[in-house]
Amino acid sequence: MKIFSKWISLETQEKYQEIALNDFIEAIVFESRVSDGIVLIFSQHTTIGLYLSNNDKYLKDDLENFLDEKIPNDPNYLHNVYGGNNASAHLKNVLIGSSLTLAVNDGELLLGEWQNIFLGEFDGPRKRKILVKVVGE
Amino acid sequence: MKIFSKWISLETQEKYQEIALNDFIEAIVFESRVSDGIVLIFSQHTTIGLYLSNNDKYLKDDLENFLDEKIPNDPNYLHNVYGGNNASAHLKNVLIGSSLTLAVNDGELLLGEWQNIFLGEFDGPRKRKILVKVVGE
Amino acid sequence: MKIFSKWISLETQEKYQEIALNDFIEAIVFESRVSDGIVLIFSQHTTIGLYLSNNDKYLKDDLENFLDEKIPNDPNYLHNVYGGNNASAHLKNVLIGSSLTLAVNDGELLLGEWQNIFLGEFDGPRKRKILVKVVGE
Repeated sequence: MKIFSKWISLETQEKYQEIALNDFIEAIVFESRVSDGIVLIFSQHTTIGLYLSNNDKYLKDDLENFLDEKIPNDPNYLHNVYGGNNASAHLKNVLIGSSLTLAVNDGELLLGEWQNIFLGEFDGPRKRKILVKVVGE
Repeated sequence: MKIFSKWISLETQEKYQEIALNDFIEAIVFESRVSDGIVLIFSQHTTIGLYLSNNDKYLKDDLENFLDEKIPNDPNYLHNVYGGNNASAHLKNVLIGSSLTLAVNDGELLLGEWQNIFLGEFDGPRKRKILVKVVGE
Repeated sequence: MKIFSKWISLETQEKYQEIALNDFIEAIVFESRVSDGIVLIFSQHTTIGLYLSNNDKYLKDDLENFLDEKIPNDPNYLHNVYGGNNASAHLKNVLIGSSLTLAVNDGELLLGEWQNIFLGEFDGPRKRKILVKVVGE
């Protein structure tokens, strides 16, 4: 059994931003020398999300607009009234989620033709750290 | 340590469809001979979702209506304006998610009395492939 | 390879309630003696959710209000028309999710400074059981 862990550190630039993580995760899976197993991608933050989706700049804007329309940063959220100012980003995080579990098959990260791994920044710019843990043989 | 992987291939028939995967997953867990461990169920698609819910035909309709009301396939989504025509299905996928991690206890897939594993087709009919990976002892 | 499983049993008191699980999970990780691995937290219920978020009483209320506003328990849901009376709780469960996969590093459950593990009760008061499975070395 092999367990291999590595952190991805990055700085976001925008309030709302979508960042593709594929290259980072694929490199870590390669470095792990795990040929069959699973990969945990874990965010230790409460105002970003991790998700799989198409790498389409139009869809990126659609998701941003959808989330902002459904979960605007209403000043009446209690978290905002009492000084937090980012209740919207927290709620988006709860809905989108903070971790992903993917598969490694034949030494490679398994992703569908249209699938990409994204970090959704909901309250940037900030420094972010993502743990990647590969478990298998 | 045992790692056992198998694909489920199926064809959906409707635009929106809910398909129970329990029987497939239970058979794969049995075939894996893993008695204690975890199961990753992974979709390689960006217009379906994987989720746990009650197997209740009324609730199935409620979920479909809820998702269609909250995320209608508005022609103004940029993904649709530029030819995608299925932005709604992509957004549903991001919200519902593309993978599930479940438990194997005493050689059996652990599910609550009312829990079922569903593939939610949001843009059918299409051919779909789901990877099931059992990891344990 | 070590695999260690333990159930958390608890009774919720309110219709809607947020319960922090950190102390339970941390104690189980410690008892497992796994120093490097992953933790699966699995709910066998269809009317609660498991999620990570800030431990902020205002944000707790914001999440409750957000979910109740977006997913009110409309008597017209078919599940309610036909006697279920908790369609809203089921839909919240599908959106929030029934399992979490977290990391164990250096013998400790990895959580960010602001991260807490929550059980969201959407249809209490009820008895609930959560399986925690630690897999690693």
